[in-house]
Amino acid sequence: LEFPRAGRTIPLPLRAPHKKEKTLEAALETPALIVDLDAVQRNIARMKAHAAEAGIKLRPHGKTHKSPIFGRMQIAAGAVGLCCQKVGEAQILVEGGIGDILVTNEIVAPRALARLADLARFAKVRTVADNAQGIDWIADAAHAAGVEIGVLVDCDLGHGRTGVAEPAAAVALGRQIATTPGLRFDGLQAYHGTVQHVHGFAARTAAVAAANATLARFIVAFEAAGLPPAIVSGAGTGSFALQAKAGYTEWQCGTYIFMDKEYRDIGDEAGGAYQPFEQALWVLATVNSTHGGERVVVDAGLKSLSLDGGLPEAVDLPGWTFAFGGDEHGKLLRDAAHAAPAPAPALGSQLRLLPGHGDTTINLHDAYEIFEGGKHVATWPVAARGKIK
Amino acid sequence: LEFPRAGRTIPLPLRAPHKKEKTLEAALETPALIVDLDAVQRNIARMKAHAAEAGIKLRPHGKTHKSPIFGRMQIAAGAVGLCCQKVGEAQILVEGGIGDILVTNEIVAPRALARLADLARFAKVRTVADNAQGIDWIADAAHAAGVEIGVLVDCDLGHGRTGVAEPAAAVALGRQIATTPGLRFDGLQAYHGTVQHVHGFAARTAAVAAANATLARFIVAFEAAGLPPAIVSGAGTGSFALQAKAGYTEWQCGTYIFMDKEYRDIGDEAGGAYQPFEQALWVLATVNSTHGGERVVVDAGLKSLSLDGGLPEAVDLPGWTFAFGGDEHGKLLRDAAHAAPAPAPALGSQLRLLPGHGDTTINLHDAYEIFEGGKHVATWPVAARGKIK
Repeated sequence: LEFPRAGRTIPLPLRAPHKKEKTLEAALETPALIVDLDAVQRNIARMKAHAAEAGIKLRPHGKTHKSPIFGRMQIAAGAVGLCCQKVGEAQILVEGGIGDILVTNEIVAPRALARLADLARFAKVRTVADNAQGIDWIADAAHAAGVEIGVLVDCDLGHGRTGVAEPAAAVALGRQIATTPGLRFDGLQAYHGTVQHVHGFAARTAAVAAANATLARFIVAFEAAGLPPAIVSGAGTGSFALQAKAGYTEWQCGTYIFMDKEYRDIGDEAGGAYQPFEQALWVLATVNSTHGGERVVVDAGLKSLSLDGGLPEAVDLPGWTFAFGGDEHGKLLRDAAHAAPAPAPALGSQLRLLPGHGDTTINLHDAYEIFEGGKHVATWPVAARGKIK
Repeated sequence: LEFPRAGRTIPLPLRAPHKKEKTLEAALETPALIVDLDAVQRNIARMKAHAAEAGIKLRPHGKTHKSPIFGRMQIAAGAVGLCCQKVGEAQILVEGGIGDILVTNEIVAPRALARLADLARFAKVRTVADNAQGIDWIADAAHAAGVEIGVLVDCDLGHGRTGVAEPAAAVALGRQIATTPGLRFDGLQAYHGTVQHVHGFAARTAAVAAANATLARFIVAFEAAGLPPAIVSGAGTGSFALQAKAGYTEWQCGTYIFMDKEYRDIGDEAGGAYQPFEQALWVLATVNSTHGGERVVVDAGLKSLSLDGGLPEAVDLPGWTFAFGGDEHGKLLRDAAHAAPAPAPALGSQLRLLPGHGDTTINLHDAYEIFEGGKHVATWPVAARGKIK
């Protein structure tokens, strides 16, 4: 794999249906998750450059792509390893050749911990903890499997989800990890899930600064206790540039590889779209019902486009807005106020939809349809799709 | 399969973690989609009784369960066939022994139509159409495969999605179908997707009455044109009782087999919950982070619970509210105003979450964990999960 490739965009204009298709094989079936691999490679190279400039390692989040292939592209571009949220995802990534994995989630169930410990026979395995009982359970699993598991103390920087909120309590867990046979104290997990998505650059900068200040108190406390954290892992696509001097040793950004509408819309410093990376992923849909010039219906709804990050955009159809159409349908409505809306696409046309939230949209699909140089070149599995356990 | 079984409820109290578990195999891994099969069988029997009383056939929607096993249970209880939304779903259902299938969606892409036509070699196959060009394409596929496909004219009863809005235009399509070799005019598809979910019995009754009046105009127009529809197919779990005398020959209800929170909350005639059927499906989750007595975190988020039908409920934990926690987490927050909230569950406890929207939640899972008599008895695949093409 070479990075980056020459820049090319993915030409997917509206296609008239049932034309130029000499065989059935010539058309992609829809809804399809399509990826511009050239843009992916440029995104990987850009993130590599950002991290190099900041002197921070990269541990991209595999929860976005759920694919050993994309993970190995990131490793080939210098990432130290990957992270993921579920042991089931870790199993797929390690089986697919990822040799260094961090599960950024509290794993407490016996069978899940047994699966995690088993992975340590094949890869460098780390997880996170925010509870003394939980640490004992990780140790039980490590002991049963005869392996060592690295553990990061999960620090709550203000997110209010998992993690320890008080530095003193976090240090106590760090000490427990460091003195428990079978475990290795590797440092801190320091992810704040909501600062990523704060809209407006000034507001986001302030939110990240508060999280950074909290992280600083954790780092000071661990250093004062004689437990300087070798790893401080966190940050995300919406905030990494603001977390360059906050003590992080590695960034966990995930979405940057494909981007999505939700991140685009958080806004940049100049008040425009947030686009440090290119959009590289869409859902291709087919028009399956037409209604004059004002409304068409496509074959993609909640089963192929998660709406938790907002409604998708019909990027190939200026002047048309996506409206909720149920589990299997999307409605595209012509905006009466638009100066020059595109003409209504014909029955059978294919068009791209930009998803609101990439991670959960990808999780609805079994395969990526890969484009290079604007041509469809491959079908890759979303190998860890649905690995929720 | 016998219907109905003796009534038993599924006892899934909060379990203390790492207790009574002699082996790792004793605990279900989570998040898990759990089903009370006794309640399913009672729901199937109840719907059979409703349909029998109304003199209407049942064609349950397979888009809900996505499973030939549940589909065959419905057929065994007298359903004339199943419906579904995607050809991929139809392929799984027919392969699994369903001999009569209606795809309630406009299929226009050549390869999808070829797959549909192929199915007609194994089962009675019908689909719907709202466009003259689309009818020609179905006929092309039927011709190429050497089969006959039944087609229903999709009538828009006010939903504003697919379907023909004008009876005269619908009749013209019916005439085209009736005179096209390879196609069979079988009647009308008459589904209104939004009246199902109108909150409040009076408002819903009014909305359904308007849809029924529209349907009556379609039926009259077809009869006047000498094309009396043999099949009028539609209705759903939230509205079927109000559509008993509207001309339907078969009901397409799907969710009744499991129910969900969204349907429960539309309200019944007395202003209470809408519960003509029992809740039979939940997501089982594990507490993986605890925070005093006020907040716990579970291992189920957007990847295992679709939130498009509203947030889930922690049915085993009175006085606690589910809050959004991201793709892999849910937060449970104690309600300070509750008179007698349950104590905070311990780390590793398992508890049930009632999903907002069943269909899309099921679509996130690979398997059903089946309980009978309160005991886990089987794991069944969500065989048509993700069959979005």
